[in-house]
Amino acid sequence: MKTRIKLFATVLIVLLFFTNCVKRVDNGKNKQTKKIKFGIVLHGGAGNITPQNLPPERAEQYRTKLKEALLTGYNILKNGGSSLDAVESAIKVLENSPLFNAAKGAVMTDVGTCELDASIMDGSNINAGAVAGVKHIKNPIVAARKVMELSPHVLLAGDGADTFAKEIGLRTVPNSYFYTPRRLKQFKKYKAQKKQTSANENSSFKKFGTVGCVALDIHGNLAAGTSTGGIPFKKFGRIGDSPIIGAGTYANNQTCAISCTGQGEYFIRNVVAYDISALMEYKNLSLKEAATRVIMKKLVKQKAEGGMIGIDRNGNIVTVFNSPGMFRAWATDSQSPVIKMFKTNN
Amino acid sequence: MKTRIKLFATVLIVLLFFTNCVKRVDNGKNKQTKKIKFGIVLHGGAGNITPQNLPPERAEQYRTKLKEALLTGYNILKNGGSSLDAVESAIKVLENSPLFNAAKGAVMTDVGTCELDASIMDGSNINAGAVAGVKHIKNPIVAARKVMELSPHVLLAGDGADTFAKEIGLRTVPNSYFYTPRRLKQFKKYKAQKKQTSANENSSFKKFGTVGCVALDIHGNLAAGTSTGGIPFKKFGRIGDSPIIGAGTYANNQTCAISCTGQGEYFIRNVVAYDISALMEYKNLSLKEAATRVIMKKLVKQKAEGGMIGIDRNGNIVTVFNSPGMFRAWATDSQSPVIKMFKTNN
Repeated sequence: MKTRIKLFATVLIVLLFFTNCVKRVDNGKNKQTKKIKFGIVLHGGAGNITPQNLPPERAEQYRTKLKEALLTGYNILKNGGSSLDAVESAIKVLENSPLFNAAKGAVMTDVGTCELDASIMDGSNINAGAVAGVKHIKNPIVAARKVMELSPHVLLAGDGADTFAKEIGLRTVPNSYFYTPRRLKQFKKYKAQKKQTSANENSSFKKFGTVGCVALDIHGNLAAGTSTGGIPFKKFGRIGDSPIIGAGTYANNQTCAISCTGQGEYFIRNVVAYDISALMEYKNLSLKEAATRVIMKKLVKQKAEGGMIGIDRNGNIVTVFNSPGMFRAWATDSQSPVIKMFKTNN
Repeated sequence: MKTRIKLFATVLIVLLFFTNCVKRVDNGKNKQTKKIKFGIVLHGGAGNITPQNLPPERAEQYRTKLKEALLTGYNILKNGGSSLDAVESAIKVLENSPLFNAAKGAVMTDVGTCELDASIMDGSNINAGAVAGVKHIKNPIVAARKVMELSPHVLLAGDGADTFAKEIGLRTVPNSYFYTPRRLKQFKKYKAQKKQTSANENSSFKKFGTVGCVALDIHGNLAAGTSTGGIPFKKFGRIGDSPIIGAGTYANNQTCAISCTGQGEYFIRNVVAYDISALMEYKNLSLKEAATRVIMKKLVKQKAEGGMIGIDRNGNIVTVFNSPGMFRAWATDSQSPVIKMFKTNN
């Protein structure tokens, strides 16, 4: 009898042990039941984007362009293309649109020029490329990729970066190509007001129309890219977080791909994009937990506004922002395109 | 008799318990028996610095200048000054010396100019400032601090940064001020060889003479700064890791202050300075463990050469490099100045 009780107890313990193990595996933070094969997320900037500030017809323009960019990247991924190609192509669509603060339609500097920043990172080998303060490259994201692939450098700035682009045969344009009637109007208004307000501290423009894209391809490779015109009426050659690897852009197959938008100086000081990756790698947080901790806690505590998009190596998608809104869109092999701009479900 | 044995056993267990506790406290990774009140560490670059490459009289010149810079910062700390002041002042001494690749004596670009980068970070509030590609600021580290303190920005580049410095009254100089006979000779040799070797890929210059300094003051505040002329014969406005917060420079009172030197592109892609801090914060590694993991494992695996100096919030000092040598020096309130350059004890 005593032996049977012992046997029963042993079986019970073994059973309990296995149940616990299975439960633990199911709770794995970075795991999900259905494996995502590929996915893409993009943003068109965070800021004071509310239904009050954005009339329906203008919202529709943003929706249409975001969808076009998303599908451009999505189709590349669907056909087995690389995440790098998807990111570059999607961002190119947004750069070519006057709706966003990147390339065509970028905000103007203090002297009425457009100076553009962009970066891209390949999660498969943590190689990266970036350009800052360029004035003549039609698509800065394309130049960023060329810096990564054709030069031994990561970051090229100013006239040197424009010269590099010309030398390798990239399409260059006069600076006026980037101007739009809307930005010229803003600039004239700024010039008229300038005597009253200090440049670079003008806080009436609360939309950070930076664009960015992250993707996971069917080969398991992650990539991230960001492109921007910076802050309106910037001067002194100000460079924000967008062309800074680790701040505005980061990708690593071990963790995630991230693109940020917001008050660039805070994103640099907090090394935001890499911090999210580090929290996943070193603290075993999920992408959502890591991004929430950085954007909604660290940055909010510092009164810093902005947001991020991310995708992890398992295809989990995250968009987190502490501003009233953020233009964002995503799709995976098992989820149809979603396009949102406000905090609510719109 | 039995009671006495029990009593004896109890006393023994209690004693063993306490011994273990004391031992554990002593082994605390970030703890040390004697609290360091203040400390300073600086570097003058890593690279192929060996007794064979550096004749004794030249080594003596480096030793003297490193000591002068160290004592400049040390005396500020000793008199209750801030770590920011100590870092800025020590780096200024190295910038003014033609021995190092920073400000006076900086390496030349592909077109025979000097283009300088510098950054500084305040660990008490993670505020930071940096300049990149400046040509006329006598002391780029001073300008970096002014960007932090007087502008809403972190990073200013090119002519804009020079203009900012002029507008706030910093001392500016013609670009020729930075030239030295040694650099002009190197440049002439490079120009003569140029037809055979590709610019920016010239690998015959294996000393990264960037300078940097980190300090802990008696108020418990950490600071870090870095200044460089970049890589010899750079072109296309190449920016390395030195002016990039998180890559070449990082400081945070919660963890440590770091300044790096080496192949900048790898330091950017690996977000080296912040990665060391993140390993301390998220994985509870000591400064030494974190720095060793990044410099001696991650970077070595990628065949990336360079080194770092660091001090943590408890005053623990670390200098780690994977190159043949690194100019380095340190001192604390309880340790006299130490100056080293080779891998051995010299």
